[in-house]
Amino acid sequence: METITGANGCDGFPKIKVAIVGGGLVGTLSACYFAKRGHEVHLYELRPDIRELEHVPGRSINLALSVRGRAALKEVGLEEQLVQRHGIPMYARMIHELDGSTRSIPYGKKDQCIYSVGRRFLNESLLTAAEKYPNVHCHFNQKLVSANLKQGQMTFERQPSKEIEQVEAQLVVGADGAFSSVRKQMMKQPLCDFSQTYIPHGYLELCIPALSDGTHAMPKNYLHIWPRGRFMMIALPNQDASWTVTLFMPFDEFGKLDTPQRLLAFFKEHFPDAVPLIGEEKLVSDFFACKPSPLVSVKCGPYNIGDTALIIGDAAHAMVPFYGQGMNAGFEDCRLLDAVLLKHKFDVGPALKEFSTTRRPDAEAICGLAMYNYVEMRDLVNRKSFLIRKKVDSLLHSLMPNLWIPLYTSVTFSHMPYAQCIKNKEWQDKVRHTKQNQHDYLINKRQFYRS
Amino acid sequence: METITGANGCDGFPKIKVAIVGGGLVGTLSACYFAKRGHEVHLYELRPDIRELEHVPGRSINLALSVRGRAALKEVGLEEQLVQRHGIPMYARMIHELDGSTRSIPYGKKDQCIYSVGRRFLNESLLTAAEKYPNVHCHFNQKLVSANLKQGQMTFERQPSKEIEQVEAQLVVGADGAFSSVRKQMMKQPLCDFSQTYIPHGYLELCIPALSDGTHAMPKNYLHIWPRGRFMMIALPNQDASWTVTLFMPFDEFGKLDTPQRLLAFFKEHFPDAVPLIGEEKLVSDFFACKPSPLVSVKCGPYNIGDTALIIGDAAHAMVPFYGQGMNAGFEDCRLLDAVLLKHKFDVGPALKEFSTTRRPDAEAICGLAMYNYVEMRDLVNRKSFLIRKKVDSLLHSLMPNLWIPLYTSVTFSHMPYAQCIKNKEWQDKVRHTKQNQHDYLINKRQFYRS
Repeated sequence: METITGANGCDGFPKIKVAIVGGGLVGTLSACYFAKRGHEVHLYELRPDIRELEHVPGRSINLALSVRGRAALKEVGLEEQLVQRHGIPMYARMIHELDGSTRSIPYGKKDQCIYSVGRRFLNESLLTAAEKYPNVHCHFNQKLVSANLKQGQMTFERQPSKEIEQVEAQLVVGADGAFSSVRKQMMKQPLCDFSQTYIPHGYLELCIPALSDGTHAMPKNYLHIWPRGRFMMIALPNQDASWTVTLFMPFDEFGKLDTPQRLLAFFKEHFPDAVPLIGEEKLVSDFFACKPSPLVSVKCGPYNIGDTALIIGDAAHAMVPFYGQGMNAGFEDCRLLDAVLLKHKFDVGPALKEFSTTRRPDAEAICGLAMYNYVEMRDLVNRKSFLIRKKVDSLLHSLMPNLWIPLYTSVTFSHMPYAQCIKNKEWQDKVRHTKQNQHDYLINKRQFYRS
Repeated sequence: METITGANGCDGFPKIKVAIVGGGLVGTLSACYFAKRGHEVHLYELRPDIRELEHVPGRSINLALSVRGRAALKEVGLEEQLVQRHGIPMYARMIHELDGSTRSIPYGKKDQCIYSVGRRFLNESLLTAAEKYPNVHCHFNQKLVSANLKQGQMTFERQPSKEIEQVEAQLVVGADGAFSSVRKQMMKQPLCDFSQTYIPHGYLELCIPALSDGTHAMPKNYLHIWPRGRFMMIALPNQDASWTVTLFMPFDEFGKLDTPQRLLAFFKEHFPDAVPLIGEEKLVSDFFACKPSPLVSVKCGPYNIGDTALIIGDAAHAMVPFYGQGMNAGFEDCRLLDAVLLKHKFDVGPALKEFSTTRRPDAEAICGLAMYNYVEMRDLVNRKSFLIRKKVDSLLHSLMPNLWIPLYTSVTFSHMPYAQCIKNKEWQDKVRHTKQNQHDYLINKRQFYRS
């Protein structure tokens, strides 16, 4: 058995040949983690090298990096470069009312923010970072067509030549997204749970261009939201002073907007202040350039097959994008997997089992929260009860920062396991709903503990 | 367009070429329904003709026919022959305690019973009944390998010759069970929800043989249950005076019983009264003859693709077997599908859409109830609170037969939509938990309505 030498406190531990399937955000970060520990890493990606493409097709939904994602980047030395130097901090939501008026709702305490980062920039940077390790080998245009995961064997088909390559690894890591091919191979094993749920909403991306002076057309350090009940629009700032705008709407409503006239009338009725920012001509051409994309939530388990294969990120737990935690949870997977492997001194079997067992309830918790926020974001943000709860939460949090942590804060600005965030919230709701009035337990903490 | 002549009130309606995939219980019954209405029916079954097989491999879990299944058989004229003449009525559960003592808990009112029927007998009889229609054509040894369901096109591979046959139909009905191939083809369409959940328990079949005088070794008109908390055994009577015994247990517990000594010690500790009935030698040989099988719960939706394809029975909603409703729900699918097609005068598109929309919440309700009973049967049957609730339920039911229907009664002995059964139960629980004591609302019905 080969052992590791000269790498990050792992000397003498077994050296593993790892095949990572999927060169997106989570796959590339995972490659960095395994490489840092001195393992032999092969990264297989279906598409061509994203750095050589002029135009990257497909989904974007701008990314909001928060504490979990940042912590995972930090451990491989990428947080400062990718987030602090490149990301645009957003300290609050900026709500756009129908009449064009706006108001902001902070995400947390004064200095707490999430960062808007471009997906392409992040993916390219992570690829380049991974390739800097001499023990990382990238293989592009490789499509997984079959696998015997129990044996760590995979067959790839090179695109477009269809040349076949047989690959063997001691550990296969599937980081190939919501429609994961590795997961499909895993599901052929007995006793695998799986669920996929589509929501009635689809999404479509639009763009607010930079102003002619090269500045942002709206206040920059906010995540802008136009909540409209059955549908919702959001905008995240880009480095080039443009905005990525995403419209979430039921598919049948999208279907009704079938002419430029109907589209413009709809926007002028529901998002009047956004129309001049996007521009009518650009709105029409961008809107009709592509079809709305579906949104799916995926849960499954276990995440591993014995000591030879594991899925992480969206492959294991794709979620709807309404809590901004999809990428953060995927990055956290990388960090936690590294920690559990280290704990078991790279005895892969027990490590994968522990990862799957402990991570699954947390991943399912955040999938559930994201689904819940799907309703909250487009609807509750406008309701008085939501705003009052936010204010009470903030007040309690400032009085008892370690005891009373609002749900959004624990999810976004802490490392508390996601399932614990929910339990914490349930306890808070229970306290809130006791028959004592809120004033009572605010002024008497001892009573608080007993309730 | 060809129209129907001379069939059951459908004259003048369009005549449809229907391909039913799956010749099990639900597929064959569905064939009878379509045939009765005068359509052209082709039934495709993967296995050979079951009537020509000496031994049928695979699962059994004896079947308990209740009101829903019987009603569906009745409409094609098969209820008397298959249930009343062949089935063995079971009026109560017979609980076996550790010390060998027994007590019975009735299923409903005095004359209410469920019927134990053999799977093979039922399947063979349904096949023969279907083939009596001149417009039914059975095709055995046909494996579905691919399909374009939107076009009603399917490719079958004949077993074992692998000869390929292309088939086209106006309507494809997938009745091919929990691991349905038709469903797999449907899931390639966008926006299909799907979930499969395995429970930690597996099952294994054993047998209590008939006594030497040809009679049953236990009181015959009962479903016998040995509830033991983490595991459970049940026995259903067969026509030949034997009993089909099913042991439900977590897979890891099965794994521990790896020698005849351990197996016998386990049975003598937990099912002492059953050991002499099964016989030690037979227990050992039957137990080690096959591996325990997994139990899966499947939900998905929609059930249809446009006006060309539909899934029914386990293909649409496989459930764990603990409510005895899997086959009953599948048979009810056939009856409801026929009714909705008739209502729409065989305008297939709107009929399939209505079936999928209305049936799905009910199917998911019974899947949920079956999962809930998974806990209740092996555990709660032994708890005092369960018995007290049963008694109170029976009392209330006898006083107000149309108003207070216990959950088990509405599921098993009525046609109330499953989702409604649950709502009904939730209302009852609410009533039960009001602070008034039960005596109060028993003697004053008006108060009851207001609560």
